[in-house]
Amino acid sequence: MLTQNVWAESEALVDLSRMRELAPLTHCITNIVAANFTANVLLAVGASPAMVIAAEEVAEFAAIASGLLVNVGTVTKKEAKAMLLAAAAARKSATPWVLDPVAVGAVQFRTDVAKKLLDHQPSIVRGNASEIIALSGSAGGGKGVDSADDSATAVPFARELAKRIGTVVAISGVVDYITDGNDVISVAGGDAIMTRVTGVGCALGALMAAFAAGCEPLRAAASASAIFSLAGERAARIAPGPGSFSVAFLDELSRVGLDA
Amino acid sequence: MLTQNVWAESEALVDLSRMRELAPLTHCITNIVAANFTANVLLAVGASPAMVIAAEEVAEFAAIASGLLVNVGTVTKKEAKAMLLAAAAARKSATPWVLDPVAVGAVQFRTDVAKKLLDHQPSIVRGNASEIIALSGSAGGGKGVDSADDSATAVPFARELAKRIGTVVAISGVVDYITDGNDVISVAGGDAIMTRVTGVGCALGALMAAFAAGCEPLRAAASASAIFSLAGERAARIAPGPGSFSVAFLDELSRVGLDA
Amino acid sequence: MLTQNVWAESEALVDLSRMRELAPLTHCITNIVAANFTANVLLAVGASPAMVIAAEEVAEFAAIASGLLVNVGTVTKKEAKAMLLAAAAARKSATPWVLDPVAVGAVQFRTDVAKKLLDHQPSIVRGNASEIIALSGSAGGGKGVDSADDSATAVPFARELAKRIGTVVAISGVVDYITDGNDVISVAGGDAIMTRVTGVGCALGALMAAFAAGCEPLRAAASASAIFSLAGERAARIAPGPGSFSVAFLDELSRVGLDA
Repeated sequence: MLTQNVWAESEALVDLSRMRELAPLTHCITNIVAANFTANVLLAVGASPAMVIAAEEVAEFAAIASGLLVNVGTVTKKEAKAMLLAAAAARKSATPWVLDPVAVGAVQFRTDVAKKLLDHQPSIVRGNASEIIALSGSAGGGKGVDSADDSATAVPFARELAKRIGTVVAISGVVDYITDGNDVISVAGGDAIMTRVTGVGCALGALMAAFAAGCEPLRAAASASAIFSLAGERAARIAPGPGSFSVAFLDELSRVGLDA
Repeated sequence: MLTQNVWAESEALVDLSRMRELAPLTHCITNIVAANFTANVLLAVGASPAMVIAAEEVAEFAAIASGLLVNVGTVTKKEAKAMLLAAAAARKSATPWVLDPVAVGAVQFRTDVAKKLLDHQPSIVRGNASEIIALSGSAGGGKGVDSADDSATAVPFARELAKRIGTVVAISGVVDYITDGNDVISVAGGDAIMTRVTGVGCALGALMAAFAAGCEPLRAAASASAIFSLAGERAARIAPGPGSFSVAFLDELSRVGLDA
Repeated sequence: MLTQNVWAESEALVDLSRMRELAPLTHCITNIVAANFTANVLLAVGASPAMVIAAEEVAEFAAIASGLLVNVGTVTKKEAKAMLLAAAAARKSATPWVLDPVAVGAVQFRTDVAKKLLDHQPSIVRGNASEIIALSGSAGGGKGVDSADDSATAVPFARELAKRIGTVVAISGVVDYITDGNDVISVAGGDAIMTRVTGVGCALGALMAAFAAGCEPLRAAASASAIFSLAGERAARIAPGPGSFSVAFLDELSRVGLDA
């Protein structure tokens, strides 16, 4: 196993501060379940979300946005077309973009869509272990959107995928791993309750797109993960259940790094 | 009027405990308003939600899921096609499935869609009194998604529909009634504030699908209703308004039956 | 500059009281991000929301509804068709309707859609300064959904648009301005945190549609704005961040005007 560098909280706070100054226009093409929470996470943390999804609009918008998220969580045929147009435009305009391959491996259609999206070379791919393994072309253990695999198991697949595509791959789990094919960064922390609220992983992908407006993808993915872990830990300490957790999580995201 | 059996809380807690052990993969094709809350309710209570909606994916996914919800709340022509494919696949694979005929009777298109869905014999139909009366083919008093009829009024229509289709029909209201055409079970409790939060009824349909993974439909519908009433009462006691109610409701769902 | 009349809280409370008595069926065709929050705002305040979006259903429903909101936040080609059908039906049936031109000016497709919707003469147009300026046909400074322009700057454009179309135009900002082309009403108050929660502006458009069921459009827009400001101020006082703000805002909306 490679040496894994633990990402320092201080590094994450530097990137967060830069992101807040930029207030990056973050274009999200995401699923109907997580759209609201994703926009609220971006607003809480200081980014400027824009949920533009029509095939008629996405290319024009991805070109002017500072970052783009493409999340295939509830992708349909028509949305797949829009996602491909947006990804192509982002690539052409050098807008950093993040692919979130939700439940890839569990069903065929979205697996095909996600693989076509890879041709437009995302800056970052973020998923759980099962999704990353499936996307890399190997046999995974996906069951819906939850991961049947441990995040560490997926590291070799992530490295291979990152090298092959020329991207950064982030595996979310109890420990998050982020790799550009060579270096592997780990981010621990967070809390198990984060898996009991829908859209937390989806919102993390969006935050990576916002961070990528101000720093290189490897840093963006690691710092966004670290900020999520930090805010998640704090929120978990004061929330008695998943309903109050998601409220406290937004509150903590709005003040992380701003504490006196 | 038939004898109505009041469903015992102890029975509901037995089914809840089994559901939590199974953590059933619950496939939801639901409306854009309730999708997020529905997923959060399922996660809070211990099920594993998956919101897969594309016509290209639903049949494949319904076949591997443990339960399926089809909710016509914001159905369009394209989604109607996906719903019919999913229902057919569920029926073929013996995946228990729940039909929620939101606002059927108020507008024609969805009324036709819901009636076609009945051909695939849902395990459970859950709606308010107006919706159940309209779906049974009688003249109802539907005004949007709120019911103009009292739930007790709908019991004869529910029994007739249940017998004719071979399904369980659950009528939500101040008192919930659940019938397989012969027996009628009643579940009281809950709180009026539950009608001031969008998606509570929709999420109940999803919970019935999750419960149906582990027990027969009549029990599943009654126990899911009872768990909702219980958590709703507890949340209402501590919440000063509808915003804080939905937060407290998720918290209570996550701990109901786990109290020392 | 014209004299601006400050809208009295007492006037707003009169209209709120009438609206609660009517509990108007408020038909919303809105974006996937704000749909849930919008429905919860309407329920909290005492209206009856119905999110009916299919091209097959909207005309039938807009005709029986007491008010209609058309919000182009995530409009696609198919939804644009439904929106035009709904607006035409509302106009024909004298159902008051509100147009929310989200991000008009930032991308071309939705700008064209919004301009076509104007042909069906909305009762109220609600947007931020950039959106109103763009919709009026002048060069605006739109960047996604946030406004690059101050609300006062947009007043002359709003007056011109209101006169030309025969509508009421409401500009949301730190101060809200509402005009029928002649009178200009201002509503101050609210709190900056309202811009850190997604869908607050969208929900305000829906509330205007609900109010318009019971009073003329100018009053409806002003009173809805004033109620939002009042509830927003109260919620901001007790909420430590944007997550808890949106919870408290719903709670405050449910009790504003009912305080002993």
